[in-house]
Amino acid sequence: MLILMSSEHTKKQLSDVLARIRKLRLKPHVIPGRQSVAIGITGNRGALDPHLFDVMPGVMEAVRVTRPYKLAGRDFKHGDTSFNVGPYRVGGPGLVVIAGPCAVESEEQLIRIARAVKKAGSHLLRGGAFKPRTSPYAFQGLGKKGLKLLAAARKETGMPIVTEVLDQRSLDAVADVADVLQVGARNMQNFALLKDLGKLRKPVMLKRGLSATLDEWLMSAEYLLSEGNAQLFLCERGIRAFSDHARNTLDLNVVPAVKELSHLPIFVDPSHATGVRSRVAPMARAAVAAGAHGLMIEVHDRPDQALCDGPQALSPEDFSSLMRDLSAIAGALGRGLAEPVFRGRG
Amino acid sequence: MLILMSSEHTKKQLSDVLARIRKLRLKPHVIPGRQSVAIGITGNRGALDPHLFDVMPGVMEAVRVTRPYKLAGRDFKHGDTSFNVGPYRVGGPGLVVIAGPCAVESEEQLIRIARAVKKAGSHLLRGGAFKPRTSPYAFQGLGKKGLKLLAAARKETGMPIVTEVLDQRSLDAVADVADVLQVGARNMQNFALLKDLGKLRKPVMLKRGLSATLDEWLMSAEYLLSEGNAQLFLCERGIRAFSDHARNTLDLNVVPAVKELSHLPIFVDPSHATGVRSRVAPMARAAVAAGAHGLMIEVHDRPDQALCDGPQALSPEDFSSLMRDLSAIAGALGRGLAEPVFRGRG
Amino acid sequence: MLILMSSEHTKKQLSDVLARIRKLRLKPHVIPGRQSVAIGITGNRGALDPHLFDVMPGVMEAVRVTRPYKLAGRDFKHGDTSFNVGPYRVGGPGLVVIAGPCAVESEEQLIRIARAVKKAGSHLLRGGAFKPRTSPYAFQGLGKKGLKLLAAARKETGMPIVTEVLDQRSLDAVADVADVLQVGARNMQNFALLKDLGKLRKPVMLKRGLSATLDEWLMSAEYLLSEGNAQLFLCERGIRAFSDHARNTLDLNVVPAVKELSHLPIFVDPSHATGVRSRVAPMARAAVAAGAHGLMIEVHDRPDQALCDGPQALSPEDFSSLMRDLSAIAGALGRGLAEPVFRGRG
Amino acid sequence: MLILMSSEHTKKQLSDVLARIRKLRLKPHVIPGRQSVAIGITGNRGALDPHLFDVMPGVMEAVRVTRPYKLAGRDFKHGDTSFNVGPYRVGGPGLVVIAGPCAVESEEQLIRIARAVKKAGSHLLRGGAFKPRTSPYAFQGLGKKGLKLLAAARKETGMPIVTEVLDQRSLDAVADVADVLQVGARNMQNFALLKDLGKLRKPVMLKRGLSATLDEWLMSAEYLLSEGNAQLFLCERGIRAFSDHARNTLDLNVVPAVKELSHLPIFVDPSHATGVRSRVAPMARAAVAAGAHGLMIEVHDRPDQALCDGPQALSPEDFSSLMRDLSAIAGALGRGLAEPVFRGRG
Repeated sequence: MLILMSSEHTKKQLSDVLARIRKLRLKPHVIPGRQSVAIGITGNRGALDPHLFDVMPGVMEAVRVTRPYKLAGRDFKHGDTSFNVGPYRVGGPGLVVIAGPCAVESEEQLIRIARAVKKAGSHLLRGGAFKPRTSPYAFQGLGKKGLKLLAAARKETGMPIVTEVLDQRSLDAVADVADVLQVGARNMQNFALLKDLGKLRKPVMLKRGLSATLDEWLMSAEYLLSEGNAQLFLCERGIRAFSDHARNTLDLNVVPAVKELSHLPIFVDPSHATGVRSRVAPMARAAVAAGAHGLMIEVHDRPDQALCDGPQALSPEDFSSLMRDLSAIAGALGRGLAEPVFRGRG
Repeated sequence: MLILMSSEHTKKQLSDVLARIRKLRLKPHVIPGRQSVAIGITGNRGALDPHLFDVMPGVMEAVRVTRPYKLAGRDFKHGDTSFNVGPYRVGGPGLVVIAGPCAVESEEQLIRIARAVKKAGSHLLRGGAFKPRTSPYAFQGLGKKGLKLLAAARKETGMPIVTEVLDQRSLDAVADVADVLQVGARNMQNFALLKDLGKLRKPVMLKRGLSATLDEWLMSAEYLLSEGNAQLFLCERGIRAFSDHARNTLDLNVVPAVKELSHLPIFVDPSHATGVRSRVAPMARAAVAAGAHGLMIEVHDRPDQALCDGPQALSPEDFSSLMRDLSAIAGALGRGLAEPVFRGRG
Repeated sequence: MLILMSSEHTKKQLSDVLARIRKLRLKPHVIPGRQSVAIGITGNRGALDPHLFDVMPGVMEAVRVTRPYKLAGRDFKHGDTSFNVGPYRVGGPGLVVIAGPCAVESEEQLIRIARAVKKAGSHLLRGGAFKPRTSPYAFQGLGKKGLKLLAAARKETGMPIVTEVLDQRSLDAVADVADVLQVGARNMQNFALLKDLGKLRKPVMLKRGLSATLDEWLMSAEYLLSEGNAQLFLCERGIRAFSDHARNTLDLNVVPAVKELSHLPIFVDPSHATGVRSRVAPMARAAVAAGAHGLMIEVHDRPDQALCDGPQALSPEDFSSLMRDLSAIAGALGRGLAEPVFRGRG
Repeated sequence: MLILMSSEHTKKQLSDVLARIRKLRLKPHVIPGRQSVAIGITGNRGALDPHLFDVMPGVMEAVRVTRPYKLAGRDFKHGDTSFNVGPYRVGGPGLVVIAGPCAVESEEQLIRIARAVKKAGSHLLRGGAFKPRTSPYAFQGLGKKGLKLLAAARKETGMPIVTEVLDQRSLDAVADVADVLQVGARNMQNFALLKDLGKLRKPVMLKRGLSATLDEWLMSAEYLLSEGNAQLFLCERGIRAFSDHARNTLDLNVVPAVKELSHLPIFVDPSHATGVRSRVAPMARAAVAAGAHGLMIEVHDRPDQALCDGPQALSPEDFSSLMRDLSAIAGALGRGLAEPVFRGRG
């Protein structure tokens, strides 16, 4: 922590600040300057709250010189986090692809699409049973019936299931079925839900909020980590800026940033980030080239009948062709698609 | 709904679109153009989903020509919504002020500040018992004990209580005590919570999300209205942009926009919008001049000891002086501070 | 300047940094910390470039602890800047209003509107002769003929003229006629133009760029001040965010921020900020309540025939009614509309 | 153009709108709706200005159903634009790389770096002689001396030169030396400069403004195209959002968007977009995977002594390694680095 005194501070104000620092059993280092005085603080174990000081008279600013998160950062854990989901290793060198429909609509629809994405090389199956919708009048998902269909699709295809948990009430039901519980962008700072998920011992995918900074995103991860759930990965899905050409602005540069600052795996969802089918493949390719650990992609074989987000769904054929590109790009960079680390359920 | 065909559509694609429109028992109006063809649709009672059409081959775009919300809009209800909270009318001509500490810290702190803001002319008392915090290590509020202290402060001062509800689990406990339940910015699209609040018969204040458009905000209001809770008002608290001079960007222009498009009352929270004490009073004055129905302002008598957001809290003296300014500005525009509509509990 | 070494820096890297600081004849202050080391630098007269240090191996970050501008800041000049434009004092206690059409269209149009805004109490007359347009096919202004008409309008009404300078080529022609030269948002970082304007001895109004931070805006002001032109005022006109309810997002909170950090007068343009007639009056009222020194407002008596920005122009009647509101709000806050400081040309 | 009447329009207002449409010799198509009436307009050859109608009483909104640009769009020209710069084809299948220092600092520095980037496979040489700087106190470039050094470096290495033109005064001098004139982000809407560049017959690279929408960017391109200069390509360099992890937000999704809507080549500048050396390579790789026609990358062999933007410069070794990656990714997608289309000057 560094404290900058205003250019018009009094002696009394300076000594009050020094007294408070010492009262916290920390050590102040006074740095006299041309216009004013700065005070470096040492001796603290964790991050200090700047508000302890910037509310004091005579203080211009209190600057944090370390990151606010602990368990999510590289300082806490140097090596990369990785863990198994079914037979696949998330966070390892192999690229992991999650694919499937936006929403579970019926048993036939789900099984049909699950088979298609598996054939194309997808590792995990996505499908929403509980859907967060901007409008109360839009299709809200099949709910518990949808969860049953997901379990059936897993049994049929052997693919592990990724599905969204919307609230605390349905958490147990979702956790019973899901191999990975997804926290959506709108719930990234639903702290009550995060705490509950921290107590689970199941993998969680935490999507970035529409206007979340990287620090805020990692602090939400910290909620899960501090409760003891370390099977956690992140997913960039586009932020809100002023774009006139896409639904959201995909911030691919956050991929290397996460990899520098955190040990957590980072995925990218090009479907929600773009909102338009024709942009999904270019952004999926770019995400792999940027170093993402995995991708989540929406696929539908009858997008004009989809109950949710049809315009951004790839056809199974386009998805299959995209998988070949992704494999080629990963190969060009010395990686590849993930291979089973053991003989899975499928 | 207006459908724009791409410049390269085929006759078959056009007739498929027309068939789908007629199948929905709606009426298509073909408008031939120089480059392409547009199709107007009439006969629908509510808003149509553009995705019904923009997924079809040959369609370039489906443009909604009406707003997505119904109950929250002026088309549904021409007159202004207003209702009583204790003895004060929210949404009426009188300016309603909510003031108090960010968080309930102790009985003494709360009663002391409650008396001070009441003396200065505040109508309602705010105070957080459950606090949403970016960091899991920050003070999370006193919880149920905080609710008890709020009830005690109401008994002592007669001021109705505004306090935040964070999640479904504590909803009943909060609803037992609060006169107004506050939904925070990070929960604006916590749809499960919104549905539960829609079933209550208590006033709710819905804060705008950090990156919520006006349409999205009104759609969240629609979740409550469609469940039957019409005692609802909105609160602008700053959006996220690229600012280097304030924590958030206060979007005061949304005040007249809400008043044009919706019948719901609109408040402004200059404390969270600015994050800095010295900007609270100018923005509070501006909000009244812009036509806000009310304000929510954080006040603390010992801000350097506050457990939460001390730097943005006004002292009771500054708050008192601000109330005189607000009364003068309201008076200059033919309004005034709210007066009790009946003899209240105090 | 504060330098933060990375947690893995070597002794050699630290001593290289210290050597560079001493080579610049500055004094390093080493602050040992738990994870790493920070170095405070003192002895510098102006702002140091962080890039002198953050490019060095082992350095995590170099943090500027003073503002990048000098002449535009309160540290350089404590008192407020004010100067006369015709008989009115810009930057003084009186509110100064600039009004007129977006573009000069014809002699009749300009004189007619000039008389109307003067009658309503406007101090200065605005009107664009050279217009910056997003489209090359849109009306680009009458150019030099427009300047002649502005001179005629001044002669007729006695109102000083505010008009935009678009480029270096037409600078002399504009400077011959204008009492205040306006730099538009899109030219805020046209540094070549700013340098030329710095050499003039005429008042300049510098609008904020659509995505300019406050620091960047004040640095553009610094270009003029450092060339010797101190008759300068700023104008907020809305920034670009994600709004769905207005053309731009008016950042009124920048008004108190400018007043804290700089001595330069700050105006607000609610017409461009909102883009819609019905929002101009509420935002003009709010700007005065927020403490702006003045306003710039577009007025047109036949907005449906305006060649430019008709939808945001107030009618003379609405403008007249707004002026009464502005006078009342200013009065409620102990200010008033500007009065002539001497007998002007009119 | 589609006109939406407000739900409270009068018969007179509707007939006034119809009359205006017919007066423009266009054809109105009235579409009666449940709440109101819409009017489709046909018969126009170019884009209509919505303001012709949305200022009329009773009109709620006038929606443009075609794009505002003409010459920059795919409707005007279906095939891709491509042209030679020296021996390389910009806009063809081969990836074109521009590399070199941010600023020309000295003959030795420039020649040394030019040789290094040429050896690593770069096609064109960049280097700023005139530098746009936020601060008037920062290094402003060597000016005309810098241009001479660029000419010398071309003679020495045979590499065509890309350099920025800052203003109209130095345009001729820059055009004498440059093979490609670069328009920087801050000048994207310097319309006077754009018109002058439109009259040149030399290639121009137009960078995207920090807060420019795609429509605005293409409209700036339209300024050049409408003046007759068709040797034009675009360059994405990051937009301004709320990021805490990078200087700008690289909007890679604009690459496929440009390719869909326009025939102009699209480059990416990962150096300015990220501002940090460690992110340049990941974003360069991603840009190629997203389909960019080329890249512009800053390289410096002594970044800690660079007079400008040292922290984002790659070393020649890192650049060389990156070129191998880019070639591999391009190869994986059926492309490759550009080859000379004829024997060049080198």
